[in-house]
Amino acid sequence: MTAYDIIKSKKDGKALTEDEIRFFVNGLLSGEIPDSQAAALLMAISFKGMNGDETSSLARTMAESGKTLDLSVLPGEACCMHSTGAVGNKTALVVAPVVAACGVRTVIMSDRGSLNIGGTADKLLSIPGMRVDFRTRELLSTVSRYGLCFAEMSGEAAPAEKKLSSLRDNTATMDSIPLTAASVMSEKIASGTKKLVLDVNVGSGAHITNVKDAKRLAREMVSIGAANGISVTALVTDNNSPLGYAVGNSLEVIEAVNTLNGVGPEDLTELCLTLSAHMLHLCGKGTFDECLEAAKNAIFSGLAFERFVWAVNAQGGDSGVLTDTSLFRKARYYRTLTAKSSGYITSVDAGLCGRAAAMLGAARRRSDDIIDMAAGVMLEQKPGAFVKSGDIIATLYAEDERLFDDAEREILAAFEISGEPKETAGLIIDKVTNKD
Amino acid sequence: MTAYDIIKSKKDGKALTEDEIRFFVNGLLSGEIPDSQAAALLMAISFKGMNGDETSSLARTMAESGKTLDLSVLPGEACCMHSTGAVGNKTALVVAPVVAACGVRTVIMSDRGSLNIGGTADKLLSIPGMRVDFRTRELLSTVSRYGLCFAEMSGEAAPAEKKLSSLRDNTATMDSIPLTAASVMSEKIASGTKKLVLDVNVGSGAHITNVKDAKRLAREMVSIGAANGISVTALVTDNNSPLGYAVGNSLEVIEAVNTLNGVGPEDLTELCLTLSAHMLHLCGKGTFDECLEAAKNAIFSGLAFERFVWAVNAQGGDSGVLTDTSLFRKARYYRTLTAKSSGYITSVDAGLCGRAAAMLGAARRRSDDIIDMAAGVMLEQKPGAFVKSGDIIATLYAEDERLFDDAEREILAAFEISGEPKETAGLIIDKVTNKD
Repeated sequence: MTAYDIIKSKKDGKALTEDEIRFFVNGLLSGEIPDSQAAALLMAISFKGMNGDETSSLARTMAESGKTLDLSVLPGEACCMHSTGAVGNKTALVVAPVVAACGVRTVIMSDRGSLNIGGTADKLLSIPGMRVDFRTRELLSTVSRYGLCFAEMSGEAAPAEKKLSSLRDNTATMDSIPLTAASVMSEKIASGTKKLVLDVNVGSGAHITNVKDAKRLAREMVSIGAANGISVTALVTDNNSPLGYAVGNSLEVIEAVNTLNGVGPEDLTELCLTLSAHMLHLCGKGTFDECLEAAKNAIFSGLAFERFVWAVNAQGGDSGVLTDTSLFRKARYYRTLTAKSSGYITSVDAGLCGRAAAMLGAARRRSDDIIDMAAGVMLEQKPGAFVKSGDIIATLYAEDERLFDDAEREILAAFEISGEPKETAGLIIDKVTNKD
Repeated sequence: MTAYDIIKSKKDGKALTEDEIRFFVNGLLSGEIPDSQAAALLMAISFKGMNGDETSSLARTMAESGKTLDLSVLPGEACCMHSTGAVGNKTALVVAPVVAACGVRTVIMSDRGSLNIGGTADKLLSIPGMRVDFRTRELLSTVSRYGLCFAEMSGEAAPAEKKLSSLRDNTATMDSIPLTAASVMSEKIASGTKKLVLDVNVGSGAHITNVKDAKRLAREMVSIGAANGISVTALVTDNNSPLGYAVGNSLEVIEAVNTLNGVGPEDLTELCLTLSAHMLHLCGKGTFDECLEAAKNAIFSGLAFERFVWAVNAQGGDSGVLTDTSLFRKARYYRTLTAKSSGYITSVDAGLCGRAAAMLGAARRRSDDIIDMAAGVMLEQKPGAFVKSGDIIATLYAEDERLFDDAEREILAAFEISGEPKETAGLIIDKVTNKD
């Protein structure tokens, strides 16, 4: 067996065996197989695809390439939730405390953002003092004590996944559905969870821009879960417009806090409750409707917010900014943008909002960029609203006034205003599950 | 412009501009673009292809990445000839002296063999003392004085081509026609020749195994030539059976010497005369028939053999082994193989002969293998012959008797013997030219 033969097999459209996948992944990690051969294989896969057996093997092999967690040592049920990534998506910050408040332990494996899309870890780090770099023992004890933990995937977990993802990032193979499915699921297998809810984001503000691909990704992840003993429910959710109003790290934490306090945006609240209910349902906490009711109660009782405060305290964060969000450091400058015409807002392009936020410093445009935690975009209006020319539609925040002009151009282009209202599509597009 | 964008463009099936190709090739050479990105681009090209403008740009860019020769400083006409590589192909050793004897200066850019297929440089190095590592000045002075030179492509010529070829070797992208066309032509552009005859080998013993690909390769190389001011005639030639009888380095030199002395195998003689005539014709030495006549005379007059002796002397070789080929070092052992049944030989698979020769030590199976110059296979019978069971059909040569069993198995499998004779296909399958 040689790396060459494996590349050639895939190039010729053949399915790889588990042995071949293991040989390649382990060879890459040990340095015996050079990055160039891995890059060639990734490109061949992006043309020829992989079947379910291949993606399951790849996910498992990547998971086994590093340290794995065992959540089954925790008492009671445990569940994970993961969003594939979209501009303004802060669901994990809300869902984890809600689910924990309902008695299901939750670990959110958080990642740093990429390009114009922020990550959960970045958002949390806008809270002064907050840490996400937990080691296994500390993570398990935090979850055990407080019911939840937001941990960054440690460098020790699934190193093969990190290696392959970084190669994909540089070789234009991020859009391969089977590779993405295997990549996400390898981290979940490594986390040791047996229950998983996935939020598969699709739209101009997401990594995946068309619904067909998103549905395929959802199906593939669910089937990798089945092959690896994980009950998975995946929701395909729309991100053509940003979820909520806030795009930017501390801005999004504030919005998540508002949502946990029952005064969040309607779309964000709806999605968080639905995701939470699916997690509770997977963990046997009753029918879906009963679980939805429990999730709502967790918010309205204040228990979910309390859990969030506990978790932030436990992770070294200053929870004072949560109880009084005006204490978050402010950006030095802001600029309000107004509608240039009157009419109905028919769409707000999330991709352009993400670009604008990144221009203001809220997200990395290169992997070594430093993020400005206070920068970003606050939408003041969303699709469906009627605005008059001159009405404020968005506010930009930045540390440097010179950043505003470019970002303004993006945001004004993001707003589509029309004489006629347009029916907006539903937030939840599809559901795929392997649960009975 | 980034390497990422260029990879993505090609992956999406777009044509690359000359600027993009130049940016990528130069970035790869300078180390700014990592091998992994180049490997991904090569794989994307092998799926999506390249048009004529792209291959011409790539060939030119690779040529310009290093030192170039200028054959126009030589008095009179100069011409190059190149075989794409096949088991038993020793045409360059015969053609160059024939053409030089007819008054056209010739540089044979020789390369080392790959896998089971030997290279011209390897064959020549079986002559004691022979050197092929010429620098520009020495090469030009040798051609000027003796009319011909067999030089290895120096490390200074087309370094980008060498870099990309070595990546292709390891990433299963050697079979990409546009990449192969650009690769071959980049070396010819770098050699400064304005006239070129190509011997495009196709069959089980060649790098290219199907006629359609070989014709495409011929057409693409001819059109790259046209775009870069080179008159090219390409012959597509059959290599399903080995050319001549000898497969192995000194064995092939001996066969070339016999051919230069007018007593070579019929197929080898025919192809060498045809290639020589096309070179003379490209250089304005008369009609094709007149040129063919001149080539024959060069052999029968002994002038061509004399030129070969001159060239070998000039390159440090001991020409004594040419005037008495029995002086070549002999392999320590040989084994004769006999027909297992009676009948007509309908084919002798060149691919299997190449494998057998490599097993005996005559060719590299890995890039760091050391070649045994005396090892190889001598066919004693060729397609078309009638043999009786027990007749000798081939002789194996090796330094170690233990190598014979495996090689014997390959050679016996290579011979197809049937009750009925089969018409053999012609040696020259197609001709493509950009000359008027």
